[in-house]
Amino acid sequence: MLGANQYGKAECRLVRVTRDADPARPGYHEITDLNVTSQLRGDFVTCHTEGDNSQVVATDTQKNTVYAFAQEFGVGAPEDFLLRLGRHFVGGFEWVSGGRFEAEQYAWKRIGVDGVPHDHAFVRAGTETRTTVVQFDGEEAFVVSGLKDCVVLKSTGSEFHGFPRDRYTTLVETDDRILATSVTAWWRYTELGLDYDALFTGIRELLLSTFAGLHSLALQQTIFAMGKAVLEAYPMVGEVKLSCPNKHHFLVDLSPFGQENPNEVFYAADRPYGLIQATIEREGAPAEPRAWATIPGFA
Amino acid sequence: MLGANQYGKAECRLVRVTRDADPARPGYHEITDLNVTSQLRGDFVTCHTEGDNSQVVATDTQKNTVYAFAQEFGVGAPEDFLLRLGRHFVGGFEWVSGGRFEAEQYAWKRIGVDGVPHDHAFVRAGTETRTTVVQFDGEEAFVVSGLKDCVVLKSTGSEFHGFPRDRYTTLVETDDRILATSVTAWWRYTELGLDYDALFTGIRELLLSTFAGLHSLALQQTIFAMGKAVLEAYPMVGEVKLSCPNKHHFLVDLSPFGQENPNEVFYAADRPYGLIQATIEREGAPAEPRAWATIPGFA
Amino acid sequence: MLGANQYGKAECRLVRVTRDADPARPGYHEITDLNVTSQLRGDFVTCHTEGDNSQVVATDTQKNTVYAFAQEFGVGAPEDFLLRLGRHFVGGFEWVSGGRFEAEQYAWKRIGVDGVPHDHAFVRAGTETRTTVVQFDGEEAFVVSGLKDCVVLKSTGSEFHGFPRDRYTTLVETDDRILATSVTAWWRYTELGLDYDALFTGIRELLLSTFAGLHSLALQQTIFAMGKAVLEAYPMVGEVKLSCPNKHHFLVDLSPFGQENPNEVFYAADRPYGLIQATIEREGAPAEPRAWATIPGFA
Amino acid sequence: MLGANQYGKAECRLVRVTRDADPARPGYHEITDLNVTSQLRGDFVTCHTEGDNSQVVATDTQKNTVYAFAQEFGVGAPEDFLLRLGRHFVGGFEWVSGGRFEAEQYAWKRIGVDGVPHDHAFVRAGTETRTTVVQFDGEEAFVVSGLKDCVVLKSTGSEFHGFPRDRYTTLVETDDRILATSVTAWWRYTELGLDYDALFTGIRELLLSTFAGLHSLALQQTIFAMGKAVLEAYPMVGEVKLSCPNKHHFLVDLSPFGQENPNEVFYAADRPYGLIQATIEREGAPAEPRAWATIPGFA
Repeated sequence: MLGANQYGKAECRLVRVTRDADPARPGYHEITDLNVTSQLRGDFVTCHTEGDNSQVVATDTQKNTVYAFAQEFGVGAPEDFLLRLGRHFVGGFEWVSGGRFEAEQYAWKRIGVDGVPHDHAFVRAGTETRTTVVQFDGEEAFVVSGLKDCVVLKSTGSEFHGFPRDRYTTLVETDDRILATSVTAWWRYTELGLDYDALFTGIRELLLSTFAGLHSLALQQTIFAMGKAVLEAYPMVGEVKLSCPNKHHFLVDLSPFGQENPNEVFYAADRPYGLIQATIEREGAPAEPRAWATIPGFA
Repeated sequence: MLGANQYGKAECRLVRVTRDADPARPGYHEITDLNVTSQLRGDFVTCHTEGDNSQVVATDTQKNTVYAFAQEFGVGAPEDFLLRLGRHFVGGFEWVSGGRFEAEQYAWKRIGVDGVPHDHAFVRAGTETRTTVVQFDGEEAFVVSGLKDCVVLKSTGSEFHGFPRDRYTTLVETDDRILATSVTAWWRYTELGLDYDALFTGIRELLLSTFAGLHSLALQQTIFAMGKAVLEAYPMVGEVKLSCPNKHHFLVDLSPFGQENPNEVFYAADRPYGLIQATIEREGAPAEPRAWATIPGFA
Repeated sequence: MLGANQYGKAECRLVRVTRDADPARPGYHEITDLNVTSQLRGDFVTCHTEGDNSQVVATDTQKNTVYAFAQEFGVGAPEDFLLRLGRHFVGGFEWVSGGRFEAEQYAWKRIGVDGVPHDHAFVRAGTETRTTVVQFDGEEAFVVSGLKDCVVLKSTGSEFHGFPRDRYTTLVETDDRILATSVTAWWRYTELGLDYDALFTGIRELLLSTFAGLHSLALQQTIFAMGKAVLEAYPMVGEVKLSCPNKHHFLVDLSPFGQENPNEVFYAADRPYGLIQATIEREGAPAEPRAWATIPGFA
Repeated sequence: MLGANQYGKAECRLVRVTRDADPARPGYHEITDLNVTSQLRGDFVTCHTEGDNSQVVATDTQKNTVYAFAQEFGVGAPEDFLLRLGRHFVGGFEWVSGGRFEAEQYAWKRIGVDGVPHDHAFVRAGTETRTTVVQFDGEEAFVVSGLKDCVVLKSTGSEFHGFPRDRYTTLVETDDRILATSVTAWWRYTELGLDYDALFTGIRELLLSTFAGLHSLALQQTIFAMGKAVLEAYPMVGEVKLSCPNKHHFLVDLSPFGQENPNEVFYAADRPYGLIQATIEREGAPAEPRAWATIPGFA
């Protein structure tokens, strides 16, 4: 029999130009660059069992709605855009009882011409992607936001020692290593109606500065500190989940060539890599599994 | 405070050569090509809060164990290899209370020389990957296996019509379209000690033949039939989860050039794509969320 | 001033269904799955210098032509399809003096249902891609065909020793190693009007069986033998170019665990990798640089 | 017989930490992050024909040399590093008559902590990659540098009309469209001993500001202007090659929903895409094909 299911249109690539971003400056544009996925939940049993599509809001219709809403309401923060989109579907079709709406946002910055930021010419900024998943269970909406592919590195200020040794342990202890990772972070907002853009900027900066500032004895310790800093500074965040590969940078053994290598020359390895994943929770706060269901990650 | 967490070594690329695969034929080799990820759960609180590594089985040690076990015990089915690996860690360190062990397996076939399969020369077979995730909660082990990147296509025998129309609906109904998807499937075994290799082969063939055989009114219907067929034929499978992009092949409009296009010429689109995801459950069977936690997918 | 230039539409994804592949079996389909790139050369100076598009056959028009031709003439071998396409552009616009037309072809095989190949259901076969680049210089056409992403491995029958040692050499000599590569091959046909499908099948098999059969002292030796075999068996091939990464499989040192590793357990590395590239030429045959210009590769 | 050939170690991932970047600030580090490929040319005939490795400088040795040189001499500009590496191989082994040495460089910027750039914590900056290929023909060295994956977009200031129309033309003319591309640029330096870091920074900025500033009637015109600007400002550049996909952003037709779309809502397409490639040459300057051989690109 049919269990949990959802369907929709994935990866609608949407670029929205705001042509009147500054009324005082005609030709001064802003752009929002999103990758939107819309998925509906509800009563779709007979479609699965009999091919009866009478309740199947076509994925093509979902895609059209994404683009139509972008024009009619603008985009704004991706969280706001998805909340608007989700309410339309969940409220608009009686058999649609919930859904999952996801967006990736790509960052752009203005190209400088003679030191002046250009009005409508942009260059992609950074490798990282802002992410958000908004889920509806009936009228209830849950917002989980984050970032991914945020690659950071410390060239010192990281140690790793004191781990147990068994018959398969060969790793040498170190009190100075490169620590590098590609941060995937997700955090749950416990309120709606927030200034999601400002929150994203602030939380991202706090994650990075905590990574930079902590003298690390283990990547686990760094991750925990990053999540804890967010919870302490942002009361509207319920918990933080971090998934961080340990992107190993191995010190190259140059002794066969009669050379020393005082933590200067490293080989950046691809695979295998450590993988550290943790949830940092607010003491006493109630869990909300409906917010986290289907969030890509470890839990 | 620290919530759910796990850590380990991801993507240990392991190729195991069995050099005495057939004692009657020296030089007749078999190869097993795996990508193994090992992650431990347990009491790692002080590592996160204080950088105390005294209970942190190093991810490097986990990697070493993968390779040492491959030599000592051989590999066999990836499910068996992961069960062995997991029992070692969960039983071997008292503060390790569980774990997650994952493998991808890549298929190879023998190169033919003058029509004869070669003894020890191979070519990669197929785009698809066999997958398995074995999770431990204490002594209890859960095995979920599957496949991904299995790309299939029907050039006819697929319709899509009868869907509701709202103000954002423009899609034209069709009674003949290409149906193509890249199947990601996961199924849970309800027993241990199975012949996982034979089961994988049988279930894969059944998924494909069901896809081929069903006259489809909706991708949802096809997916449900695929999962149902597996549950009916394999009593040791508890439930099946399928995640299938609808890889759209759009009929090209050739009328501006005075040409007809009787379902002959298609444009294979990249994004956006439909995304259909469903769980097919055995009636009356108890759920086992511990088996499915952290399985990449939709639920 | 403007030097060499070309422009066009890249990566037109074309799936062509042949619905009457076997008149005796209605519903028995064949499919051809191509990725077509069309690029024109000629007099496009004023477009570059002044933005004058009066001679710029729009890339959108090139795309339309790909699809229209697929319907009107069918596809057949990709070489034939590109020759037809190129003649249309080079002959059809007086200022178009040449062009470059490329296709990738993806392999599919029929899904078996109860042991019988299905009429119109297919599964992607293999990781490898058939490739061809057809270039025109005026009326003259040059056809270079090949394959890529053909991953092969020998679990024995490969040695590597006798190389020079300098102060930076640490590699240990071996008389038994895994030899694995991902073959990229290109060969130039010296005639037109060939049975390109049959030739592709034959040359591919010969490349693989030569890889399998040769006891290898160096990947260079293997590559040279592969190209030489093609030249000897196929007189219509002018030369062969091969680009083969040495996909290193390192024997894992298990001695710290008290284990031997008699060439059984290997770590498949990602980067760095050896990269061996060679042209194998027919003695006395004239070169044809116009055929090879812009072929991705090493020369 | 053996034609052109080369071999070596590809993609040596090298991270070099300069720990005394500023003597006045202990702990103030700089990092250089490269992906280095080394390939040798010369007399390697008997290796190919007989498996005789006596002249084959092992690719492992080439890799070791990369890391040893990084420690002994530092890295500096990638051009300088490759020149040093190449001279070692070409001058150091009498049968090595040339080579090809390539590097990608990844950009990092310092993480800000309370507004202050951190001493030794970094975050990856930008999607783009700095590239260089240094080739030796005997003692002669040729330096070609560039960038790739530099994604830029103008939300207005781009037109496309006046192109010829044939029976396959359906494209509508436009006087306002989004122009977006991912710039791959290569330029050849006609001198050695230059300040390659400063030149890269300046040329990159000029390419971007020219893209931003030009009102575009065709992507060809934009590309030509970009290359011309570089040639005019940098006399030590011999020619510029640009390869730019036209990353189509299609205006979404919202008229079925009763909405206007005044260049506000766009669908960013993946494939197919326009592909515009051109060489911009300095009038009267001699060509140097040895510099451009094997440069990935169109000519």
